[in-house]
Amino acid sequence: MKLKLKNVFLAYFLVSIAGLLYALVQLAKGMDRTLPLMQRFRDSATALSSGQPCDCLPPLRAAAEQLRQKDLRISQLQAELRRPPPAPAQPPEPEALPTIYVVTPTYARLVQKAELVRLSQTLSLVPRLHWLLVEDAESPTPLVSGLLAASGLLFTHLVVLTPKAQRLREGEPGWVHPRGVEQRNKALDWLRGRGGAVGGEKDPPPPGTQGVVYFADDDNTYSRELFEEMRWTRGVSVWPVGLVGGLRFEGPQVRDGRVVGFHTAWEPNRPFPVDMAGFAVALPLLLAKPNAQFDSTAPRGHLESSLLSHLVDPKDLEPRAANCTRVLVWHTRTEKPKMKQEEQLQRQGRGSDPAIEV
Amino acid sequence: MKLKLKNVFLAYFLVSIAGLLYALVQLAKGMDRTLPLMQRFRDSATALSSGQPCDCLPPLRAAAEQLRQKDLRISQLQAELRRPPPAPAQPPEPEALPTIYVVTPTYARLVQKAELVRLSQTLSLVPRLHWLLVEDAESPTPLVSGLLAASGLLFTHLVVLTPKAQRLREGEPGWVHPRGVEQRNKALDWLRGRGGAVGGEKDPPPPGTQGVVYFADDDNTYSRELFEEMRWTRGVSVWPVGLVGGLRFEGPQVRDGRVVGFHTAWEPNRPFPVDMAGFAVALPLLLAKPNAQFDSTAPRGHLESSLLSHLVDPKDLEPRAANCTRVLVWHTRTEKPKMKQEEQLQRQGRGSDPAIEV
Repeated sequence: MKLKLKNVFLAYFLVSIAGLLYALVQLAKGMDRTLPLMQRFRDSATALSSGQPCDCLPPLRAAAEQLRQKDLRISQLQAELRRPPPAPAQPPEPEALPTIYVVTPTYARLVQKAELVRLSQTLSLVPRLHWLLVEDAESPTPLVSGLLAASGLLFTHLVVLTPKAQRLREGEPGWVHPRGVEQRNKALDWLRGRGGAVGGEKDPPPPGTQGVVYFADDDNTYSRELFEEMRWTRGVSVWPVGLVGGLRFEGPQVRDGRVVGFHTAWEPNRPFPVDMAGFAVALPLLLAKPNAQFDSTAPRGHLESSLLSHLVDPKDLEPRAANCTRVLVWHTRTEKPKMKQEEQLQRQGRGSDPAIEV
Repeated sequence: MKLKLKNVFLAYFLVSIAGLLYALVQLAKGMDRTLPLMQRFRDSATALSSGQPCDCLPPLRAAAEQLRQKDLRISQLQAELRRPPPAPAQPPEPEALPTIYVVTPTYARLVQKAELVRLSQTLSLVPRLHWLLVEDAESPTPLVSGLLAASGLLFTHLVVLTPKAQRLREGEPGWVHPRGVEQRNKALDWLRGRGGAVGGEKDPPPPGTQGVVYFADDDNTYSRELFEEMRWTRGVSVWPVGLVGGLRFEGPQVRDGRVVGFHTAWEPNRPFPVDMAGFAVALPLLLAKPNAQFDSTAPRGHLESSLLSHLVDPKDLEPRAANCTRVLVWHTRTEKPKMKQEEQLQRQGRGSDPAIEV
């Protein structure tokens, strides 16, 4: 019986030891696995709580790069917007530009409308221009009124009839009575505030207006360049005129930038041997000399002198057009059309329709 | 001794049981803590690896909002850039506008430059215009070449000398030989791709070009309105001409929008009793009839018919200018200037400076 008990105890002892060892090993294993896990998790936890990018650095970097590129595009577009627009065909002229007052006497004749259309189209190429059209008539005509309204120009419509005594009779040569004298003086009156406008701008230039006055007959030919030559006239400016006085051109002779004489064949000793188309006068000078005007009784070829002698000493004339070496205006004359066939047809009652304006 | 052994065994049994139990409890506890930790860590791990924002959602949301606003700004700026600039004084004409080819024969004479300056300034008012200037000369002259270069127009410079047999002799009236025939045909040759340009645009219109051809002598007077009347010509368009043929005007008679006759005093039975300035031809029609040109041997007043009879039936003429009730072109003639004084001065060696172009 003793031995039996000893064996039972021994068996149980071995089994229990084995079980105990297994338990301890298991426990140890568990701990080994747990501790590092806890460490790693604690790391992530602190990282997140402290708000630093964990693994979202890449997406944030990409976003920042996109923002940078969009800022670049925005500044490019803003630069494009700041760039001035392409210059228009005719840049709007600065308000500072002196106004050119073009005085044109006109009278009814077959070629009147053709001449005025041609001149008005030339003037439409010149910025800051004011056309003073003065009809030799008792009252404004529909032809001229309609033409002015359609011209698109800034204009003033004036009318004055040449007195009978000064009118040319049929067949009389043009030089017997200078033409357009009353009309040019009428324009000077308007500029001096004496009114008389029957159409267009009725108020004269306000005091202190910078401008220049040019007498442009309706049959001459004008280069658009001529008007920029005269625009900045201080007193009286001068230049050559083509195809006048029986010469290729008439014009001032210039030395060292001053007018020292005149190239002309007709009465070279006139005070101012220049054609009506060959000079322009500063508006302030004209207003400062209220008596300066054209004298209808002036002898042949002296009409220009009758105005200019009030205004300037010949040596003070301002040469323009490259010291008077360029011809920019031509004293062209338009032939009087023959109407023989018209008269024949009219006798047969088949004349050109009078309702159609020519 | 039996009892002693039993006690030892009992004591050990209790101790070992206790130890075993403790070990098991520890093991169990360890497991309890380990499993949830592992679970939570596995969650974070998968989250990051799968690239979704963990706690970096807020910064990424902010970045996305900034990107949205910058995109908005960019589209605003682009819209501003697309907005058209303020309309210039002369708006650029649409490319769709048919080109007007203006054919002008010219020859050297005292008033040539004046006439060409006047005409070129009128043409400069017309959009989509191509000037074909044809000199009656052996070679291009400096005067015309310089004038074209300064005109600012799109032009082609052509030259052809009128054969001696067809030239007018001193004092011969203009109608003995029609003037400008060779020159107008030279322009037709260029339009048909036969070359010959000595200046300006040298290539003819590309195939399929929409355009119209008008024969504009350098002494007539043209209203800018005339060119818009002819621009959309389909075949041959016609209108009245002022101050021609001894009449106030010549022109087609129109009934119900069709040409039924012509108002003219000279040979009303000519196939086409119209002046050179009174019609325009669609470019495609001219190119489709390669033999259509002017006949220098045509009898007086039949030059226009010599071209038009190739191109159109009189009843198909397209009336323009308010059914031919408006005069927009005038057959003006410029007087030949007298040079008596010039000759006198030249004999005295005091002639006008030949270095100055007039």
